[in-house]
Amino acid sequence: MKRRIIMIGCGVVGQGFLRIMDDKKQLLSSKYGFEPVLVAVADKLKGSIMTEDGLDIPTFLEHVEAGNSIDSFQVEGAITGLDSMETIRQANADIMVEVTYTDIKTGEPAATHIREALKTGESVATTNKGPVTLHFDELCRMAEENNVLFRFEGVVLSGTPVFDLLEYCLALNDIKEIEGILNGTTNFMLTKMEEENMPYEDALALAQKLGYAEADPTADVEGYDALAKIVILSNVVLGGNIRPEDVERVGISGITIEDIRKAKEEGKRYKLIASTRKEEGKIVASVKPEKLSLNDPLAGVGGAVNALTFKTDLSGDITVQGAGAGKIETGFAIMIDVLNIHREM
Amino acid sequence: MKRRIIMIGCGVVGQGFLRIMDDKKQLLSSKYGFEPVLVAVADKLKGSIMTEDGLDIPTFLEHVEAGNSIDSFQVEGAITGLDSMETIRQANADIMVEVTYTDIKTGEPAATHIREALKTGESVATTNKGPVTLHFDELCRMAEENNVLFRFEGVVLSGTPVFDLLEYCLALNDIKEIEGILNGTTNFMLTKMEEENMPYEDALALAQKLGYAEADPTADVEGYDALAKIVILSNVVLGGNIRPEDVERVGISGITIEDIRKAKEEGKRYKLIASTRKEEGKIVASVKPEKLSLNDPLAGVGGAVNALTFKTDLSGDITVQGAGAGKIETGFAIMIDVLNIHREM
Repeated sequence: MKRRIIMIGCGVVGQGFLRIMDDKKQLLSSKYGFEPVLVAVADKLKGSIMTEDGLDIPTFLEHVEAGNSIDSFQVEGAITGLDSMETIRQANADIMVEVTYTDIKTGEPAATHIREALKTGESVATTNKGPVTLHFDELCRMAEENNVLFRFEGVVLSGTPVFDLLEYCLALNDIKEIEGILNGTTNFMLTKMEEENMPYEDALALAQKLGYAEADPTADVEGYDALAKIVILSNVVLGGNIRPEDVERVGISGITIEDIRKAKEEGKRYKLIASTRKEEGKIVASVKPEKLSLNDPLAGVGGAVNALTFKTDLSGDITVQGAGAGKIETGFAIMIDVLNIHREM
Repeated sequence: MKRRIIMIGCGVVGQGFLRIMDDKKQLLSSKYGFEPVLVAVADKLKGSIMTEDGLDIPTFLEHVEAGNSIDSFQVEGAITGLDSMETIRQANADIMVEVTYTDIKTGEPAATHIREALKTGESVATTNKGPVTLHFDELCRMAEENNVLFRFEGVVLSGTPVFDLLEYCLALNDIKEIEGILNGTTNFMLTKMEEENMPYEDALALAQKLGYAEADPTADVEGYDALAKIVILSNVVLGGNIRPEDVERVGISGITIEDIRKAKEEGKRYKLIASTRKEEGKIVASVKPEKLSLNDPLAGVGGAVNALTFKTDLSGDITVQGAGAGKIETGFAIMIDVLNIHREM
């Protein structure tokens, strides 16, 4: 079955998604009867294109990866120059992929794009944390009212399964508590500090050199990145309605190798743990460094890796561990959402 | 939507499943539109019952848990005394739950039950390793020909997601290699030997005392249990066609606390690792004790816990960790299969 797909935003994640969708097109067709047609792409900086018959993905990617504008891609009969909102309205798509930049404070422009798509009868797949952090209830309600789906597997742990795991593999379970390592950069730094006796500043410089940490590392080392994710998990999985300011937050910038050495002597290990649980109907969530016993499933998670433990009533403690970032991994998060939307529609 | 369910076998796992299905009936109905009706139960030793309107699960469970025969459960108009095959043929069910005892050498009687159900147009959910180890290809083909589903989430890691994870969360990934801790008993023993300097014999006696190991512990300590699971993963996930005798197998009975102490000095840890990979189109599978670096995701898995790492082309290394046994956990494996059959049919 053909499904018309539009993509808003055309950066690293979007390109990763298109690459996967093209690489796996035979499997998509033979195993799932799914023939995606990319009918439009719009990007605020790179321009837009819309074409009834769909773009040839490999040549389009080559064109964009070479630094060319989207408008300048040559397709007969294509319409260029529409903005994102017009593209969403006019493309008559089945699925919108939203991969614009994340603004965690306003959720824009992604939230506006998503609302428009849902209203227009398009299902949505996004990796954008902003709208999910700020408008989860509203967007779910809109999707339901319009009989379409709203999916966001990649907003926590990128392509490592979280929401699909709960939806398809752990359905019916009452999730009592969630605990995890939700930031790869700080986990990498803590691992280096422990294993190589590397001072905090050197571990940070190395993380920056390897591209794990930004030039301004505040979002990672002060726990803001993990905080946004634990807010999402609290609201989406535990049914809470909390805001970022409701979460206790301590980063790792106060941790020294001396602290780590002492913990090691006690047979323990520091991890930046994000956790959330229901307590008398209220959500109690925090992000802070914790000394874990070495038997804790999260203690063994080393390097720039993410992990989550779900404490459940039927399945016991289930831990999933994998990449929390990466072009292909995050592109895959969009791909699995798009595929599951196809399967459910 | 009402779905007629029959259950063949009525031991611990089957009772666990019924308990969950009854406890969660409101959620099944409100969230999934699923109203299961238990129209028949047959057990070789406990007898059978079949009734058009369905059994009242709580009173039925109470009756069976008190040690009574199934035949003696009083329901007006019920038919008793049918054997399993007649029950499968006459019950006009949508889904058969197969939870008879496992015979890994013949796959019987489960394989015969499953064939009959599939032919009769019933989807099948089972936790029985026998038929999946020996007849996977044939049973999948039969299910396809009869337009029904054959599900077996619980045969590896009980209710901890494995096959559903691959089907719904990691679809499209090419799985290159699988590595895991597939036996909780031996992992418990190795953990005790390392952490408490406990000699092998004492660790085994403790595992037996706690009910993790059988009186005859061969299947666990010599790796046969893990071997059956790696054969299933090789054939189901990697598309192989191997038999138990194709797998290299070494148990843990040769491991001493001296070995473990030496490994610890090298910063390593012994685990009984089951692994399988494709090599030039051939499956190479083994079960043997391996010294893992402490950074390996499997090294941190302590106690009577199972874990699996999938090495994938799109999602990187994904590790899942959880219980590998238990009445409720394994009952849940049946429940999730039954629910997903409902969702897909």
